[in-house]
Amino acid sequence: MKTICECPKVSIALLHYPVRGRKEEIITTSVTSVDVHDIARIAATYRVSPYYIVTPVGAQIALVHRICNHWLKGFAVEKQHPRVEALSLVKVAANLEEVCQDLHKIYGIKPIVVVTGAKLDNGITEHSVAREAIRTGRWQLTLLVFGTGWGLSESIISSADVKLAPIRGKDKFNHLSVRAAVAIILDRLLGDWV
Amino acid sequence: MKTICECPKVSIALLHYPVRGRKEEIITTSVTSVDVHDIARIAATYRVSPYYIVTPVGAQIALVHRICNHWLKGFAVEKQHPRVEALSLVKVAANLEEVCQDLHKIYGIKPIVVVTGAKLDNGITEHSVAREAIRTGRWQLTLLVFGTGWGLSESIISSADVKLAPIRGKDKFNHLSVRAAVAIILDRLLGDWV
Repeated sequence: MKTICECPKVSIALLHYPVRGRKEEIITTSVTSVDVHDIARIAATYRVSPYYIVTPVGAQIALVHRICNHWLKGFAVEKQHPRVEALSLVKVAANLEEVCQDLHKIYGIKPIVVVTGAKLDNGITEHSVAREAIRTGRWQLTLLVFGTGWGLSESIISSADVKLAPIRGKDKFNHLSVRAAVAIILDRLLGDWV
Repeated sequence: MKTICECPKVSIALLHYPVRGRKEEIITTSVTSVDVHDIARIAATYRVSPYYIVTPVGAQIALVHRICNHWLKGFAVEKQHPRVEALSLVKVAANLEEVCQDLHKIYGIKPIVVVTGAKLDNGITEHSVAREAIRTGRWQLTLLVFGTGWGLSESIISSADVKLAPIRGKDKFNHLSVRAAVAIILDRLLGDWV
């Protein structure tokens, strides 16, 4: 019988570069405040930490720090606002290598890098399989990578350990916001719905 | 053996009034563009329709129409942008009675009104039970009601047919955005994850 890991270690990264644009070109997207807040709140719900916001742009890194510090230093802390707990999970990194290095520094092991995307189809791992791998501790440390824009670049996808199955809608519609995708995937992998 | 309903009829309503404020007072919240877009995209994914945005404020009703018309009349239609399909599901209503009347007009039956909320605890229905009720057609027409602000008012909750169980996080953190809650609940009730 396998040992059940009491506390699966899962973290997430939201990539703003390198991601695809409308015409499959490689672009850098802007950080949006709603992604910082919504995904931090989802991460806090499922006890996923850290939540890495990944961008190489200095001004965007400064923006994330400014958004977080607004909540982490001042009135919200005094009022014990739940957003303090959520935003305290946010970290910023310039690229995915930096994220993996930071996780290695925290936990002493390399993460299983799991990429997500609405168009992934070859060699994908179903959500139920990933859930079991986390639950049993077969994946000791998991990094879920989400793309902004029109999805993660091929370079990020091809270098990952696992490609997670896309969220399949009822029809062919395939255009969720990344915030909704994070919510659904974390619930499928970690939610108490069984 | 029960007949399985091929096409469960599920619609959603996002209430901006009457909802609770920080101090449990009854307030009217503002419509936000991100709620219009994100929830319409989630509704399209799970083939849920209509998506009612409920507010009694004339200027806010006009705002929703303006947001939708920006996408439904013009460049997005020409480019066959997926947001056209999503935003075509949006309807506006002044209150919940109007929503129920509209559903009755469309389908010829009254909806089962299912309220949601992070703090619901008495007499709640689990997600798996609601999923089965929809799947088997026991609930022929379901209206899922979501609150903005600090949640639906007691008057809305007490007059509902069903109180859906809250999404329980790993710890005590209980502060998802309404967008994330809609995504998770629709996936639990209608998602193809079995």
